[in-house]
Parts: sequence; structure tokens; C-alpha cells
Amino acid sequence: MKEFFRLKTIPEVLELLQTFGPLESETVSLEETYGRVLGLDVIAPEDVPIFSRATVDGFAVRARDTFGASPGSPALLDLAGDIAMGEEATQPLAPGQTQRIATGGMLPPLADAVVMLEYVEELDATTLEVHRTVSPWENVVQRGEDVRGGEPLLSAGARLRPQDIGMLAALGVTRVEVRRRPRVAVISTGDEIVPPEAPLTLGQVRDSNAYTLAAQITAMGGVPVLLGIVPDQLDPLIERLVAARAQADLILLSGGSSVGSRDWAIAALESFPEARILVHGVAVSPGKPTIIARLGTIPLFGLPGHPVSAMIIMEILVRPLLDRLSGRPAARPDWDGMVAATLSRNLASTPGREDFIRVRLSLQAGTLWAEPILGKSGLLSTMVKADGFIRIRLAAEGLEAGAPVQVHLFRD
Amino acid sequence: MKEFFRLKTIPEVLELLQTFGPLESETVSLEETYGRVLGLDVIAPEDVPIFSRATVDGFAVRARDTFGASPGSPALLDLAGDIAMGEEATQPLAPGQTQRIATGGMLPPLADAVVMLEYVEELDATTLEVHRTVSPWENVVQRGEDVRGGEPLLSAGARLRPQDIGMLAALGVTRVEVRRRPRVAVISTGDEIVPPEAPLTLGQVRDSNAYTLAAQITAMGGVPVLLGIVPDQLDPLIERLVAARAQADLILLSGGSSVGSRDWAIAALESFPEARILVHGVAVSPGKPTIIARLGTIPLFGLPGHPVSAMIIMEILVRPLLDRLSGRPAARPDWDGMVAATLSRNLASTPGREDFIRVRLSLQAGTLWAEPILGKSGLLSTMVKADGFIRIRLAAEGLEAGAPVQVHLFRD
Repeated sequence: MKEFFRLKTIPEVLELLQTFGPLESETVSLEETYGRVLGLDVIAPEDVPIFSRATVDGFAVRARDTFGASPGSPALLDLAGDIAMGEEATQPLAPGQTQRIATGGMLPPLADAVVMLEYVEELDATTLEVHRTVSPWENVVQRGEDVRGGEPLLSAGARLRPQDIGMLAALGVTRVEVRRRPRVAVISTGDEIVPPEAPLTLGQVRDSNAYTLAAQITAMGGVPVLLGIVPDQLDPLIERLVAARAQADLILLSGGSSVGSRDWAIAALESFPEARILVHGVAVSPGKPTIIARLGTIPLFGLPGHPVSAMIIMEILVRPLLDRLSGRPAARPDWDGMVAATLSRNLASTPGREDFIRVRLSLQAGTLWAEPILGKSGLLSTMVKADGFIRIRLAAEGLEAGAPVQVHLFRD
Repeated sequence: MKEFFRLKTIPEVLELLQTFGPLESETVSLEETYGRVLGLDVIAPEDVPIFSRATVDGFAVRARDTFGASPGSPALLDLAGDIAMGEEATQPLAPGQTQRIATGGMLPPLADAVVMLEYVEELDATTLEVHRTVSPWENVVQRGEDVRGGEPLLSAGARLRPQDIGMLAALGVTRVEVRRRPRVAVISTGDEIVPPEAPLTLGQVRDSNAYTLAAQITAMGGVPVLLGIVPDQLDPLIERLVAARAQADLILLSGGSSVGSRDWAIAALESFPEARILVHGVAVSPGKPTIIARLGTIPLFGLPGHPVSAMIIMEILVRPLLDRLSGRPAARPDWDGMVAATLSRNLASTPGREDFIRVRLSLQAGTLWAEPILGKSGLLSTMVKADGFIRIRLAAEGLEAGAPVQVHLFRD
């Protein structure tokens, strides 16, 4: 045991994780961009739309020709043809003229508004009455009104949402520079761990954490690479670390809550001359026996073996690191994945560490209650029952029943 | 135009969508289950763990042998060997005996607690002092304590989260019955629409909506099938509908906000003897010109052409339909994807329809403000700027500045 390592606080660990650089970018086709992180700022290459369009079905007019028009005193206009959809409207609108136009059609030169169908009466094939005054640019999206060419549109580090992708399509951007997804190797360690498909004998447990971690990695935008189970022995562990280093941007060692197991992990790490242990224990509960190291430029987490601890460390420390590797900004909106609720009972906490408490949510008579689930961190079922967790800060001595809390939601 | 259709309210439409049945299930391997919806209830096939395990490093004891032990008056125990990790502990613990055990190790027969390393002093190779009393089952996860065999664990209709997948792995469930992902065909219509890679000429716009919709479908758990662009003509439209019907569980017609375009869509639909128009206009803004039909058993949406309207209809109507097709329960937690905020300005609304207002969020001095973005529904950039939307219910005449609002978040 290396007891000379002081426990690090979460802010200290987060600052340290910022020393890992973002991954390089790659170019993908627009269809593949959902959920990806932009690698560079996008400046609109042109106007959207590139011509002024009708937003209703009706008649293109010069607005001034309708001024004062009403059902009692309609304006009379000459119908000078129809505007074909998808084609350039080339025939300019002379004063007193109108042209039929459908939603999305191009306004002809000199037209500056559209009168809706409902306010028009067609007297004959070439004459119509307008029963309403329209203002300039009424029922029109002007050229460049949605986006102006040269305008900054999306920032590097933004995770692309459906509307952002639609906007890229509208601009004709079909190849997009995004950050490479972090590849995250998961090495399960422990003499007692067997694959989930294996029949169990007494003394063994199935490798549940690797599957939880893989899904968390996917949820966080990474690509999980499961490297199987290694016994608590030096050489196989070193061998597997070499394999992980060759293909991953982040290595997770899963399992091994025992001192012996942790010692093997550290011994294996220290056999690499380029390895450096950065953190040996974090001031959190659950999750204290977390190890963080770097193997050259590659970050490595030795996760606690208890499933609840491992999941919490993933949420509070590995998620920000994956954001960092993906080039996302460190500061994220406070409301992201959070919900305000009321604590259902008193909770004790130890000052000097942060506590993460699993909670179940229930809405009763308009109040959203957060009910703590106080099981051992070895019980995965407590996470299955939970809707999220709350965080009790370093200096706090606990929370009282009725206290307002922010619940960090587990997304489904 | 078929004006004899009355606008339907959102609750009416949602009820009607419940007439579409859930899709069949399929069996996938555990690695593929993240985000999938369970097709049947999962009952735990066995206990987790299948033996009582230590949760700390230390010594397995009979708790009664430590009663009264303290640093001043330690209990003396005989060290009767080490318990190997991953193997069955077969040697029963005699009174006054102890065995060394690591975290995760199996408790030997007749042991009922573990004393942590820190509270023990080893006097010689076979004798140790215990400086602390432990209670029965202290520092132990008992057999079946996490999950008891036969216990209902997960319900059909649940979307699998990382912890749920880990629990399945812990139970040895490696093949999982999940609902098939709904395949959603997108047919873009309109003479003015061109693919995003095409150079634009005046009068044309790029098919932005298909890309927005594809990402929304993915976000909602479906599989998008983009079927390209069809001009506003009867025969090509019928042909594409035949292709869509052959491969999709839901068909979306995108584009065609003009009356002419809608008429073509309806004419094409009506050429199918098994087609039935169910909804022709919804009492919402934006999104009113929405058509909903069934083509035999397959639901079809004629989405509004304006990008904001199409996205809102996807969120409020297509998402519940996809949930239905995926076998998810109709009622979902109110806090799912919502955040409470304060409205920054007055908002007018028309009673008799529901209004969906795009908002941008900003946190200022502890207050989360929702600032309305009041652009035309033809402007996709307003969605790019928005963080979510608020809903003004049917009967409301608007909201005042300072009103508490629930913001439906756009997830990234």
C-alpha cells in the first residue's frame, strides 16, 4: 500500500484531467454526425435562403399596392402568371401586378410581400381583389434571414443536435470535421471474475462491471473496447496494458477492490518507464479507492471494484475526461441532466469528502421527492432502483429532510 | 383542400396513436442492448451473489468471537489459513478461529462477519488480536443480498440503462429479448427541394428537414431510412410510398407546406384502398398543417414543411408514437428531459390551441431564465439558438414575465 499519497478532491482531479489533450479530428459525412462533437467553428458559407421565399400560399405583391385595402375597399391587381416551384422567378412585378405563389416559392423581382389566399378574390383569369393590407416583407422569409453568409453558426466543441445537422444540410455542408470518438479500453481484473456466459462456481462472480462501463462509455460518446478478464498476476496484466495502449485513448482497469488487486495494478503500471501515478484515492464516497495514472500520454483509471463506486466515478470524473478528449468545453450548463427535487429524509455526511447518494424520484401532490437509497456500494441493485444521485459537497455535514436538492439524473 | 376535417387536439391525437400496436421482439446479445427496450419482464434466475462475500480486506470471523473486543481488551483468534480469491471456501470456521480474506472473497462456512485489516494485529503466524467488535454480517454482502432468485427485476417496456445491463450480466443473462427498433422511412417532397450536396440555383432549397428528422429518429430510438426526394406528382409519390410501406414501421412525408403539395400527398395516399386519413390538422402552433394517416397497419405522418413545425411535431407526437411502437409505457415521468425556469417576458397565446415557444436558457444570479426566441417557424436558426421549448396549454391566454415554466430540453 502506498499510503504517502494524499486523497485528492474532485476539483483537484478535474484540474489534473485538463492536462490531457483533445483527440484529433476526422471528417465524416453528414449522416454520421449525430451526437458527434464539432472539430472546428462553422461559419455559414452562404445565405439561407439564397432568395426571398413565400411562407404562405397566395399572391406575390408590392406591399404598397395593398395599402388601405379592406373587404369594403379592396385593391384590384392584375394577375401576371404563376411562379413555378423550384425555379427562378425572373419576371419582375410591375406596379399593380401580382403573381400566384405557393409556400416556398421564390418572390419575383420587385415583389416584397405575399397576400394569403384567404384574403383574395379572383374576379376573372387576370384580375383579383385583395381584401387586406400587407406590410413590406409580410409572409416572406427574406434572403439571408435564416442565416447570413459569413455569420458564425456553430462552435468547435458543440455536440451536434438534430437542428444543427439540419442547418449544415441547409448550407450544403455534407462533410463535417468532428473529433474522433475516444476509444476506451476496459480491462477486467480479478481472480474471482468470470465472463457472464460462464457457469458460476462458488467463489466466482460474473464480470458485470465491464458491461455497465461499456454502456456508460457509449452514453458518454466513447467507443468501448472490452479487453476481457485478467487474473491478479503481473505478467498477464502488463501484457494486456500493452494491448490497451496500442489501441485506446483511455484505459480503464475494472475490478480489484482488494489491496492485493490494487497492488498488482500499480506494480504492472510501474513496470512501464513512461507511467506516472497521478492520483491514489479521491475524497469521495463511494469511489475513494480510485487510481488515476498516465501511461505516456494515455490516461488510465483504476476504478473501484464495487459497482456503485465505479459508476459514480465514471459520472463525475471519467465523463469530464471524455468531454476533454472530445474537445468539449469544460464548463457545461448547470441544468444539463439535472432536476430539482425535495429530499425526503435527513442525510448525514462526513465533512472532508463529497458524498454521492443514490435517490429514487416520486411525484406526490406536486412535489418531486428524492428518496435516498442507502445500500452498500457493492449492491448494483441499488443503482437499478435509482433514478439518479445527489451530491453533498465537501464542507457539508449533511442535509435535512425537506432540503432542496439537485438530482443528477440517470438517463435512459 | 378537405376543410371538413376538424383540427384535433394533442390529447385526441395521442389517444388515436395508441391504436398502433407495439412491434415484435428480437433477441440480441448483451453488448447490443444499450438504449434498447425490454421485450419482456426479467425475473432474476438466481441469487446475486451466489455466496456471501467480503466487502473489505481483512479476516473472516464468527462475530460472537469479537464481542467486547477493543484496543484495551483485544480478542485473540487462531489464524487458520487464507481464502483464495475465486475459489470455494470449504474449510469451516471453528469457534475462536479466523481466516484471511480479501474484498470479494467467499466467506467460509460458519463465518458471519469480516474484521477490517486496520483493526487487527498479527502477533505471529497463527495468532492475531482483534481490536474491535463486529456485528453479525458486518463487512459482508450476503448471498442473495443484491438480488434474490425469483425476484422481479426489470419490466417489459423499460429502456435499458448501463446499470440494468450490468445487472443482466451479473445474472448471466447474455441474450436479451428487446423490441425491434422502429424503422422510420422519410420521403422528402417538393419540386423545389434538392439534395444537400447539389449546387443550388435560385428557387431551390436543400433538403435540410430529412437530416434533422433522421437525427431526431435516431435520438428517439428509431432507425431512419431516407428515401430521397420526390417531386409534387402523383405517380412518383405513390411509387415511393409503396417502397416505404415495404420496409418501414412508420412513414414520414417531409416538406410540402403548400396546399398543392399537401393535396398531392393526400391524393397519393387515397390511391391506396387500405389508406385512411385520421387527422388533418392539429390545434398547435407551430405544426397545425400536420396530416396523420394509416396505410393498412402502418402509421404515416405528413409533417409540416417549416423546419421548426416539423421538429415540434416530432417531439410532441412522433416521439410518443415511437415509444408506443417500441413497447414503452405511455405515461412517462414528468421530470424526464425537463427543467424548471423563469419566463423572461410576457407571452401571448391563443386559447383553443397549444403553443410551443422556443427558449434560450441563461443562469443569472441563481435564477434560470427562459428567454423566448420569437422567430418565424420557417427559420431553422431559431432552433439552433434554442435550448428547448415551453408549452402553453390549450386554455391559457398566455404567460406573464416571471412565471415559472417547465422547459422541455433539446438534448445534445
